[in-house]
Amino acid sequence: MPSSAGRFREVIDRIAGEMARLTDRGSPADYIPALAGADPGCFGMAVAEPDGTVYGAGDWRRPFSAQSLTKVFALALVLSLEGESLWRRVGREPSGNPFNSLVQLEYENGIPRNPFINAGALVVTDRLQSLTGNAAERVRELLRVESGNAGIDFVPEIAASEAAHGDRNAALAHFMAAYGNITTPVPELLTAYFRQCSLEASCADLALAGSFLARHGVRADGSALLTRSQAKQVNAVMLTCGTYDAAGEFAYRVGLPGKSGVGGGIIAVVPGVCTLCVWSPGLDRRGNSVAGVSALDRFTTLTGLSVF
Amino acid sequence: MPSSAGRFREVIDRIAGEMARLTDRGSPADYIPALAGADPGCFGMAVAEPDGTVYGAGDWRRPFSAQSLTKVFALALVLSLEGESLWRRVGREPSGNPFNSLVQLEYENGIPRNPFINAGALVVTDRLQSLTGNAAERVRELLRVESGNAGIDFVPEIAASEAAHGDRNAALAHFMAAYGNITTPVPELLTAYFRQCSLEASCADLALAGSFLARHGVRADGSALLTRSQAKQVNAVMLTCGTYDAAGEFAYRVGLPGKSGVGGGIIAVVPGVCTLCVWSPGLDRRGNSVAGVSALDRFTTLTGLSVF
Amino acid sequence: MPSSAGRFREVIDRIAGEMARLTDRGSPADYIPALAGADPGCFGMAVAEPDGTVYGAGDWRRPFSAQSLTKVFALALVLSLEGESLWRRVGREPSGNPFNSLVQLEYENGIPRNPFINAGALVVTDRLQSLTGNAAERVRELLRVESGNAGIDFVPEIAASEAAHGDRNAALAHFMAAYGNITTPVPELLTAYFRQCSLEASCADLALAGSFLARHGVRADGSALLTRSQAKQVNAVMLTCGTYDAAGEFAYRVGLPGKSGVGGGIIAVVPGVCTLCVWSPGLDRRGNSVAGVSALDRFTTLTGLSVF
Amino acid sequence: MPSSAGRFREVIDRIAGEMARLTDRGSPADYIPALAGADPGCFGMAVAEPDGTVYGAGDWRRPFSAQSLTKVFALALVLSLEGESLWRRVGREPSGNPFNSLVQLEYENGIPRNPFINAGALVVTDRLQSLTGNAAERVRELLRVESGNAGIDFVPEIAASEAAHGDRNAALAHFMAAYGNITTPVPELLTAYFRQCSLEASCADLALAGSFLARHGVRADGSALLTRSQAKQVNAVMLTCGTYDAAGEFAYRVGLPGKSGVGGGIIAVVPGVCTLCVWSPGLDRRGNSVAGVSALDRFTTLTGLSVF
Repeated sequence: MPSSAGRFREVIDRIAGEMARLTDRGSPADYIPALAGADPGCFGMAVAEPDGTVYGAGDWRRPFSAQSLTKVFALALVLSLEGESLWRRVGREPSGNPFNSLVQLEYENGIPRNPFINAGALVVTDRLQSLTGNAAERVRELLRVESGNAGIDFVPEIAASEAAHGDRNAALAHFMAAYGNITTPVPELLTAYFRQCSLEASCADLALAGSFLARHGVRADGSALLTRSQAKQVNAVMLTCGTYDAAGEFAYRVGLPGKSGVGGGIIAVVPGVCTLCVWSPGLDRRGNSVAGVSALDRFTTLTGLSVF
Repeated sequence: MPSSAGRFREVIDRIAGEMARLTDRGSPADYIPALAGADPGCFGMAVAEPDGTVYGAGDWRRPFSAQSLTKVFALALVLSLEGESLWRRVGREPSGNPFNSLVQLEYENGIPRNPFINAGALVVTDRLQSLTGNAAERVRELLRVESGNAGIDFVPEIAASEAAHGDRNAALAHFMAAYGNITTPVPELLTAYFRQCSLEASCADLALAGSFLARHGVRADGSALLTRSQAKQVNAVMLTCGTYDAAGEFAYRVGLPGKSGVGGGIIAVVPGVCTLCVWSPGLDRRGNSVAGVSALDRFTTLTGLSVF
Repeated sequence: MPSSAGRFREVIDRIAGEMARLTDRGSPADYIPALAGADPGCFGMAVAEPDGTVYGAGDWRRPFSAQSLTKVFALALVLSLEGESLWRRVGREPSGNPFNSLVQLEYENGIPRNPFINAGALVVTDRLQSLTGNAAERVRELLRVESGNAGIDFVPEIAASEAAHGDRNAALAHFMAAYGNITTPVPELLTAYFRQCSLEASCADLALAGSFLARHGVRADGSALLTRSQAKQVNAVMLTCGTYDAAGEFAYRVGLPGKSGVGGGIIAVVPGVCTLCVWSPGLDRRGNSVAGVSALDRFTTLTGLSVF
Repeated sequence: MPSSAGRFREVIDRIAGEMARLTDRGSPADYIPALAGADPGCFGMAVAEPDGTVYGAGDWRRPFSAQSLTKVFALALVLSLEGESLWRRVGREPSGNPFNSLVQLEYENGIPRNPFINAGALVVTDRLQSLTGNAAERVRELLRVESGNAGIDFVPEIAASEAAHGDRNAALAHFMAAYGNITTPVPELLTAYFRQCSLEASCADLALAGSFLARHGVRADGSALLTRSQAKQVNAVMLTCGTYDAAGEFAYRVGLPGKSGVGGGIIAVVPGVCTLCVWSPGLDRRGNSVAGVSALDRFTTLTGLSVF
């Protein structure tokens, strides 16, 4: 395998070709109309290397709804702002339950298991809102600066649609507020959270924006967003908790830290080597992109780059 | 035992005397300041006989916060308005879990186990609000008319205090709304619910207002609020579900249909014979009035009037 | 309604006639072959009055598998032998979960919610075995003496079949043993338990044998098996916990203390008036006899004898 | 960092020195007497490199009770014998619950979440027993051959003590048998399981025996125990599920696939580089060796060898 920049161009092209022939592609998320209309035939894959080189295949420059992919960036921002103290409010253990479950939250007194289940992501956004007064804008700014794409923005229709179907998240937020683990007023928090999730970006944007995870915490401009140890920690949480109730399966098949979203995107990290972003809107029953997981599986198989 | 009206005067006086000497009286509910200040030394007990005779002992004419006692009246109103169809929205089985638990609610897809746990009471108020546009006022009206006391009213400070500590109920309401089992907008529902719970009335008022349960559904004016079968059903739900996670214990010790509230009140029914209301603000760990349960236990022991 | 002995003969005959025309009768329990073969067309109903008068209709003299009906008798024996101390080992609250669930048992540290779910019945048999060395024989003896039928006996094939399918009960017993709440060696306990459950008796036998519950604890010979208070307590536990996850429904429809078994039998008590036993092998989805519940519903409707 | 064999000698010595000064070392497992007597002052650490070089520090040659470390070897044996079909009987997802919990097992119909919680390990041993007739001996044989130490053996006193306190495992086994997911008779299975767990070996033995995981499945003699893909999969399951309810924490702090046992041992893998085994009997509240986790944390910090 060549070590120069661009070394995965061929493998990416090959995978995109394979994915184009994939027949069982799952179905788009249908809990809000704005996502249900996505075309499961779409597929994009981008690789960002630590030096800023980015390339891809398929629909890799087409914006899609980032949704839960934004949770990685919100988490990184909070860690950069307040460090370890976040972990008194949210755990780092896999949840072992479907991603919306309230059961464990009650069992553990309002402390979510990890920052990537919805309850935990609400806590992270609550912290970011408390620390900055403007959680969603901070996430947008981070994506813009790291990707170099100033056009990345919220999609108000998506945010409104999420809010209109937001009873479960409202329940989670009020429930944690009852335990004192949410301090932002719940309506304000939900507005910030749904805005954050409505961000739209392309595989290219998100692979670049997530490059700090492959660069041990270093931003595009060379400054540190996270310490080396914190970057490693985010990767660890992604590996154990990043793909809903399929984290074990994802580790088993793909073997990389990864975070998926219901928009069909997945960010994955090969520490020190590259950050990947794949996208295809069709989901499996656990909410992960069918072609996305398959493409990452092929990537680690073809390159031998699994962390295991 | 004399069968004439007033036949329980002596036994009530005797019990009030015993309760005055009770040393371990529990502690008032402390989740809102307005209840925490109640004097656990208070004790009242009233008996209302089917012919409208009412008498009592101790603080039986002193108003207290009815809280969950209002759930019996809201349930009766909804049953009188829409009958059996309510039971598609709420079950009739004991909950087997502390009264606020979300676990079973999730397990059973947003259908609360029974109308007396908080989730179920929210569904009942949601129905009453949907059917009448004014749930709390309807409950107030029923209490006023049946008791003959036009002074029964809401306590805005109590309602406001409940709302300020209402995250858990908000969580329950949003959670059920996510399952389509709440149709009133959640903020409107919570306002109605907290108003309803803030009603203040005396043992005398509540024993009279609950007389329809001893009269097989017949109101004070001789008209039917409930059918004979429905009245029997409400009594059955009170016996199996009326005292939080202590329904078995209450059936075992007292042996009457009963409904308790965190204000320290308990309504109990001897079908065909009388309706009782006791009040003492000190609660046991399950949220039932210590002196109240004890007084009812003594009543059935002394009169032999348990349903078993 | 006549108050002399035999006063329910007509109503029983009428109900048996109605039940003969019932079309939807449920299906026999099929977890063991010995029960699966029962004819859902069978129906029997017997009434035992406090003076020992017994009569019935349909298959009221035909023996059937008593199964969980024996739990009432085992409970009464343990209460008569050690009284209140039993309640440190088993609760008296409805379970709020399907009858075999392990969840609440774990949540409550090996103390079953009540003596009628399987876990609780195992604790009762464990106590009876510890206190007498011969739990199953004691239950058989009680049934024989109270019914006057010395032919009541175990059915070894049923006991063997239960044992062959006994993994869930074995799991429950070992689980409670891990908490120190079972002291008999598990294999010995299970043998006793499955023997006890294999007892075969008729509606006539079981109504007579359960007469002490309508006689406030007094046995057929006039001696006390239970105190008045204990008899009342057993009735209370039957009402709140006697019909698996349908206790609320049973209270609501029938309104009497009752205990059902998967053999299709149900014992019900009208305190001070009579003990009933109905039998029909077809069960509903919660494990209660369809025709049995229906017959008892008709009985309380026709006689007005509900406790509510 | 030197790439020759023995390159971690200095770092191991340094860590052993640090661990000797550790003051808070936790407490040995006390659920069976045979483990409770272990000296928490003990500490051993061994590194086995792919070429068979092994070295260590502290008590690295002293045998200790392998306990759950044996689960890795049993899993590898079953995968080598029947491959993917194992995953129809046991999942690969983290459990999100304390390691003995029955709740999820019931929720998921007798299919354990992963092969490293007790329920899952029982399924693995059940498979190994079914496939070979001699599960415990096969595990012993694998350890002996791979480590080159023919003295590795069971400790009958440990096995007997586990059996005497084995009610919870018996409950798990019977519970899964009720779902048809255990086919070996439960007493036979438990005997095999407790024997397997009673194996005693040193850090040196276990690091060597686990070398196939760093060698992509290749045994000491050059033959394949597992395919490259299977070896990667075992590492993935170790990372996400190997340290009870602290897998996220372990990934976060250490960042290596690891499996711990209540005897105080931990096996960890740096794929392609080495297998480590640490041992110190004092456990934290989640059942992992305090000094063991700390030593591995130091190892990845000092060498930069975390997979993240």
